Amino acid sequence: MPAVDGFWAVVPAGGAGTRLWPLSRSGSPKFLHDLTGSGRTLLQQTADRLAPLAEDRILVVTGQRHEAAVRAQLPSLGADAVIAEPSARDSMAAIGVAAAVLERRADASGEDLVLGSFAADHVIPDADAFGDTVREAVAAAREDYLVTIGIEPAFPSSAFGYIHQGDPLPGHARACRVQEFVEKPSVAVAEGYLAAGGYRWNAGMFVVRPRVLLELLATQDRAFVDTLRTIAADTSRIDELWEQCPKIPIDHAVAEPAAAAGRVATVPGGFGWDDIGDFDSLAGLLGDRSERVVLGDPSRVLGSDTTGLVVPGSDRVVAVIGLDDVVVVDTPDALLVTTRERAQDVKGIVAALKGSGRDQLT
Amino acid sequence: MPAVDGFWAVVPAGGAGTRLWPLSRSGSPKFLHDLTGSGRTLLQQTADRLAPLAEDRILVVTGQRHEAAVRAQLPSLGADAVIAEPSARDSMAAIGVAAAVLERRADASGEDLVLGSFAADHVIPDADAFGDTVREAVAAAREDYLVTIGIEPAFPSSAFGYIHQGDPLPGHARACRVQEFVEKPSVAVAEGYLAAGGYRWNAGMFVVRPRVLLELLATQDRAFVDTLRTIAADTSRIDELWEQCPKIPIDHAVAEPAAAAGRVATVPGGFGWDDIGDFDSLAGLLGDRSERVVLGDPSRVLGSDTTGLVVPGSDRVVAVIGLDDVVVVDTPDALLVTTRERAQDVKGIVAALKGSGRDQLT
Repeated sequence: MPAVDGFWAVVPAGGAGTRLWPLSRSGSPKFLHDLTGSGRTLLQQTADRLAPLAEDRILVVTGQRHEAAVRAQLPSLGADAVIAEPSARDSMAAIGVAAAVLERRADASGEDLVLGSFAADHVIPDADAFGDTVREAVAAAREDYLVTIGIEPAFPSSAFGYIHQGDPLPGHARACRVQEFVEKPSVAVAEGYLAAGGYRWNAGMFVVRPRVLLELLATQDRAFVDTLRTIAADTSRIDELWEQCPKIPIDHAVAEPAAAAGRVATVPGGFGWDDIGDFDSLAGLLGDRSERVVLGDPSRVLGSDTTGLVVPGSDRVVAVIGLDDVVVVDTPDALLVTTRERAQDVKGIVAALKGSGRDQLT
Repeated sequence: MPAVDGFWAVVPAGGAGTRLWPLSRSGSPKFLHDLTGSGRTLLQQTADRLAPLAEDRILVVTGQRHEAAVRAQLPSLGADAVIAEPSARDSMAAIGVAAAVLERRADASGEDLVLGSFAADHVIPDADAFGDTVREAVAAAREDYLVTIGIEPAFPSSAFGYIHQGDPLPGHARACRVQEFVEKPSVAVAEGYLAAGGYRWNAGMFVVRPRVLLELLATQDRAFVDTLRTIAADTSRIDELWEQCPKIPIDHAVAEPAAAAGRVATVPGGFGWDDIGDFDSLAGLLGDRSERVVLGDPSRVLGSDTTGLVVPGSDRVVAVIGLDDVVVVDTPDALLVTTRERAQDVKGIVAALKGSGRDQLT
């Protein structure tokens, strides 16, 4: 399959990943790590997955402190291919500044550009199915929809927002209108969604013409769009202007009001997806619940009668005996021992370290 | 209380302690470690406990590879105060060579010397009660008994041999004859011993005149005694002669046959005792089962909802969340995660490391 004409991949590379401490740190967040044992980091896998669609048309939006690491992992990125944020101001600012930059390029070249925004730390094993879905999304975006990709729910999760699908979009194979975005529900409510059908996980993947995105935002916050366009016109002013950008997720800023206005479409993603929210999901991604899975060199792990996840992330031997659903993460300066069930509580360790003045370990 | 006239403390400092891996290593066995958080190693605590009884009359018998570490931990030891074994040949050879050395000193000085042998890796919190018991044992030893100290059983253990007490020894406060030594029993049999009364744990503590010990041994193995005396006469010959010593525990070589011949007495030890056989007993020694006990710097341990033992033995932070009766032992080159219940299985890790050619970690 050829690349998609005029398609630009935007990759927001942010997020602290505190529930993956001590693997993920503020100075080295999860997108910089190989969490699947593939030999490629999540960022590299994201770029690999997008290259057949976008070729070298990629914009990575990341924190200034991560720019060097991003460029080291993706050495083919050109000088203009990274937008370095002075601080983290949530997804609307990150995707919005990329949209403003691409809007200018479209105007300059006369091309009909469409951007697709895909987080740098998601796992999608089936790149072909992903590509097919994006192609359909681009086609819908060219009818001036904000197009979101809806992930088929693997279980009634209370950790994700849901997309409530509406009527099919005429002339498209799978695209539908979006009735509404639903905030993270309770498990009971999520069970109802799965039973009813027509609900999909919102993974924050948006495909849209840059100008459409900015004009949808302008109906809510004209000043925000002005700031983004000013930065795009002279990116050397980003340090001066960035703090004026409201800290708001793209879902609240644009997707929800646009859905209410009938401007959002969705294409159901026919592929597996995981955002590796914690060590429980990482363990589930790497193996069966009855196994002891090792992320790293298996010869460094010894022991018996154990299930769960072991990460031998220093040069030490790790011996584990007689524990079920355990999580052992060994790094050069910090060790975590917990259970898959308590994976959500790992963020409390990061808070405790900050509270005791040990920020260098977070 | 004054020291005991003519009393010599013999401290066999050996044993691999493989069930305490990775804290205890063949190159740094458990007696060299502070396992109670007191700031003193087990060897140092043993010497501290014996000093009020023996003053500077102490003989440490240890492997040649450990002599330097022993002297570093006990800097007041004189040149003749360490007997360095070319190889480990069990307790009869270790205590026997010390007895042969002390027999010569007794003959040379005309003093009535009595030796007491106490392993370097046992924990006895109440040094005063220990001292009182040893004084009684020395008095019985001066009637040419081999005197063993009987530990009151804290529970029906299948890990220790038992001393079956006989009639009281006339003229002594607590000393009794020993009917027999009983090999490690099943838990059911041990329960019977505790219900019946009159049984005590054999902790391998023997108090005896050097010549009495050697003559009791000579009734079983005359050549062994000849070898020990030849070494004592010229300790520079130890490398040449040591391998001639049979590898046999003192219990089998002397104590059991001597008991059958009516030559063994026992003094009941009125003190708590632990040989820290594994991490379960170490955890029990350091705290209550409902606690998370830390051996080391508690500020390096984070987390919640955990009971068991955490040893932060490297310079790293250790976070443990939501595990009961867990054992986490962190050292610079190896990490152990297991449960108190599985503490006995730790020796299997040492075997696996040796089997995979990683002896440097054992």
